[in-house]
Amino acid sequence: MIRGKNLVNGKEVDCLKPTTYKTFNAKDKTALSNIYENASIEIAKEACELADHVFDKYSNTSAATRATFLAQIKIELEQDKELILKQYQLESGYPNGRAEGEFSRTLAQIQCFVDLLNEGSYINAIMDVGIEGTPDLRKMSYPIGSIVVFGASNFPLAFSTAGGDTISALAAGCPVILKGHPYHAGTSELVARSIIHALDKCNLPQGIFSHLHGEKIEVGSTLVDHPKVKGVGFTGSFKAGKALYDIAQKRKQPIPFFAEMGSVNPVLILPERLISDSEIPAQISNSIQLGTGQFCTNPGLILVCGTEPDSFVDQLVQNFGEANNMVHPKISDNYQKQIQELESKGVLLHRKSLEDNSPVAGLISAESVLEKPELLEEVFGPFSLVVHSASTAVISQLIKKLPGQLTATVLGSKMDLENNKMLIGNLQQKVGRILFDGVPTGVAVCASMNHGGPFPASTDTRFTSVGTSSIERWLRPICFQDCPADFLPEALKDDNPLQISRTLNNKITKAVV
Amino acid sequence: MIRGKNLVNGKEVDCLKPTTYKTFNAKDKTALSNIYENASIEIAKEACELADHVFDKYSNTSAATRATFLAQIKIELEQDKELILKQYQLESGYPNGRAEGEFSRTLAQIQCFVDLLNEGSYINAIMDVGIEGTPDLRKMSYPIGSIVVFGASNFPLAFSTAGGDTISALAAGCPVILKGHPYHAGTSELVARSIIHALDKCNLPQGIFSHLHGEKIEVGSTLVDHPKVKGVGFTGSFKAGKALYDIAQKRKQPIPFFAEMGSVNPVLILPERLISDSEIPAQISNSIQLGTGQFCTNPGLILVCGTEPDSFVDQLVQNFGEANNMVHPKISDNYQKQIQELESKGVLLHRKSLEDNSPVAGLISAESVLEKPELLEEVFGPFSLVVHSASTAVISQLIKKLPGQLTATVLGSKMDLENNKMLIGNLQQKVGRILFDGVPTGVAVCASMNHGGPFPASTDTRFTSVGTSSIERWLRPICFQDCPADFLPEALKDDNPLQISRTLNNKITKAVV
Repeated sequence: MIRGKNLVNGKEVDCLKPTTYKTFNAKDKTALSNIYENASIEIAKEACELADHVFDKYSNTSAATRATFLAQIKIELEQDKELILKQYQLESGYPNGRAEGEFSRTLAQIQCFVDLLNEGSYINAIMDVGIEGTPDLRKMSYPIGSIVVFGASNFPLAFSTAGGDTISALAAGCPVILKGHPYHAGTSELVARSIIHALDKCNLPQGIFSHLHGEKIEVGSTLVDHPKVKGVGFTGSFKAGKALYDIAQKRKQPIPFFAEMGSVNPVLILPERLISDSEIPAQISNSIQLGTGQFCTNPGLILVCGTEPDSFVDQLVQNFGEANNMVHPKISDNYQKQIQELESKGVLLHRKSLEDNSPVAGLISAESVLEKPELLEEVFGPFSLVVHSASTAVISQLIKKLPGQLTATVLGSKMDLENNKMLIGNLQQKVGRILFDGVPTGVAVCASMNHGGPFPASTDTRFTSVGTSSIERWLRPICFQDCPADFLPEALKDDNPLQISRTLNNKITKAVV
Repeated sequence: MIRGKNLVNGKEVDCLKPTTYKTFNAKDKTALSNIYENASIEIAKEACELADHVFDKYSNTSAATRATFLAQIKIELEQDKELILKQYQLESGYPNGRAEGEFSRTLAQIQCFVDLLNEGSYINAIMDVGIEGTPDLRKMSYPIGSIVVFGASNFPLAFSTAGGDTISALAAGCPVILKGHPYHAGTSELVARSIIHALDKCNLPQGIFSHLHGEKIEVGSTLVDHPKVKGVGFTGSFKAGKALYDIAQKRKQPIPFFAEMGSVNPVLILPERLISDSEIPAQISNSIQLGTGQFCTNPGLILVCGTEPDSFVDQLVQNFGEANNMVHPKISDNYQKQIQELESKGVLLHRKSLEDNSPVAGLISAESVLEKPELLEEVFGPFSLVVHSASTAVISQLIKKLPGQLTATVLGSKMDLENNKMLIGNLQQKVGRILFDGVPTGVAVCASMNHGGPFPASTDTRFTSVGTSSIERWLRPICFQDCPADFLPEALKDDNPLQISRTLNNKITKAVV
């Protein structure tokens, strides 16, 4: 049930004189009835203190205990599915298919971490034992402390309250303070209540998870600045992400702050493939329109090498469908504004409809973009800028000027790829993931995924926010030197009671010492 | 040969109107004859541009090529050993044994990375292949870009020019710009020339390694602030490390900055062991005096639980030897000053001699330290503060107030450990390495080592600066989606031509796909 309250220690807490806000029906842009209380600074601090208070206990739970807890979150979410998805659709305007899809993805993501914990090797046990002249050294990963997670506007489930950041941090053994995104506060509160029920069923301390509402930056900045907080996960805009990152770095004790801040995800179409593959425009067109363009991996920049791109753009636009809702009036307004700005800067706009939120393709020469690199800034919505040049040298210059990206897609025939190795190499240096087929908008949740990239795509290119490797953001090594057998953690004991893969004297093995 | 010149692109480069400085004979505190030119801002920028220029080529060398290069550095260092160690001893004042020891350690450290590269699995290949409904995804690590390394004052070889930071970055495939420490500029230049010879012998571009002299902060801050620099390794004081860290974070594009900034490395002696183990005072005393206390793992804080610690301190002092040199007059002056300040704040000083640089033990109650936490600040030199309390509750309070540490050592009987599990758990949360025997001053170079710790021991507790895992600071994942077989990097090809361990569909294996 949505009650608009902040949830700390498993309970609704009252603010003295709460300021409040409402969420919007994304379809008709009218305010929904529920009222949400902005968490006070005191409540935010209380959540941080409480998380730190339970850290010792939670960080020392077994991986099996945490796997059971995460599995229980899945069960609770499934029980409340109808309620959650009803609110999700009201607040996001996303259609049924997307709602079902994102819900399933969220559950599957949790299951990935359940499996990771049950398998156990993620703990990265490394041991050097019985070596003449060297002490007995055994290292494994421990959680870094309490983590603040910010819900994302565009994925109310998969990148929000029980999304990848929260679940990877809980899997690591870190308590989480969740700052719900104000655009879907109701969905966030419902999901938070599922997590709280799961804690309860698993007899775990409620301080492990708190949920705070907050419409303004104060709640978030208080959390990021709190000395008991040891890390932050964020998905959203560059402006908000960088502002919070700066707070994290200016603390007396700076902390890891992982922000995934989106990108334009260039798609490079090479000459032979442009001519030979007639399916490309439709594929990219669908990818642009997915979720009304509100994907951080939306293909926002298409680099067309070779011939004039007019027929390509025509086909792209032919595949444009109707205008859909965006998750919030503010996002929608901003989208229209950005499109207009591009037009004023010389970008030729191609579209089927002038209706708000309708998909748009921009067209401009690579030479013009080299003169106006501000055209490369992300437009959040169903838009892509088609940049063309007959000269691969010019395209190459443009690629060198690109800021860091989550993804790049290279569409080329075998000959195209052979002929453009250096171009592709340059592109690879700019990205976290490089695709040679398909579209960038699908982000599989698995061990091999990388969802991050050089700044400003993310704040730390060494980590991913999607896939099981994302747990590494919240772990640090501790080395045990000459520790008596009885006092070693399970993962480091001679007889390998957890049956995990370990690096023993430079060999990966499940063997006993 | 030492010529006091900056080395860029394998050549000595001239400053227009160079300012200069000299290093000191650490024994008699007189200036040595060589004159060193402070690198100009232009030279610093040139080195950064050049490193970036060769990044593409160097980052794409095979691990085998880099292993050969590192092995050649070893050969060159061995050839110049006599020259290097003569200068090392002049500039550091360290005795023969230490000189030989640090030289051997430096070579052994390089060999560790040669072995790591030859084995090859460090590249962390993770593949999800042939899974219904999922694209072909293969991820591996790539170097992050050009790295700036700062030489450390206290280890002119092992933590400086061809030390762990440089070698791990070069192993990763990152070009290095080395800012030599001004206290041992001559040693640094000689080692730099060995690296330049190795590049030459291996036909690698000279832009991969530059060596800059610089007495003031300007050279370092220019390097850290340069847009073409993508990461920094630093070992030194909190003051210098934090100032440079802040520059790295305030850049338009923030970059990873790994600073190891030392700590007081608490040694907790529990009641039974204190009485039963008469060898402890001598062991700790030796550890305090090692390298005239100029170790970042120096045991600077001894927590004595239980009885009055007078006889412990007496035995500690009995084992104190003569005063030795410190690496630089400034360090020596600062040491005397800090000792005097502690005395003025109520710490009882115990020593054999009033001579400069002589070892000192301070004595104070844990209760007093709780009132004056500034007493816990690191004293760089052969000093340790013995803090005692009959109450483990008070010791526990003190441990909770400790800042992050590189190491902690727990000396206890089996019963002691059983009785103090919570205390030990609290201590563990503060450190990167916890010892249950011996002294913290030995830092083995191996896969299981962790040399880092919660802030302010280091700037990012998720990484180590010693041991083969330190390479992870300079690597980032790139994911290849649906990449044609011919275009996959060797490490990710179906037939596993590098014969490395890979994670294939969640199983660690050397098998082919």
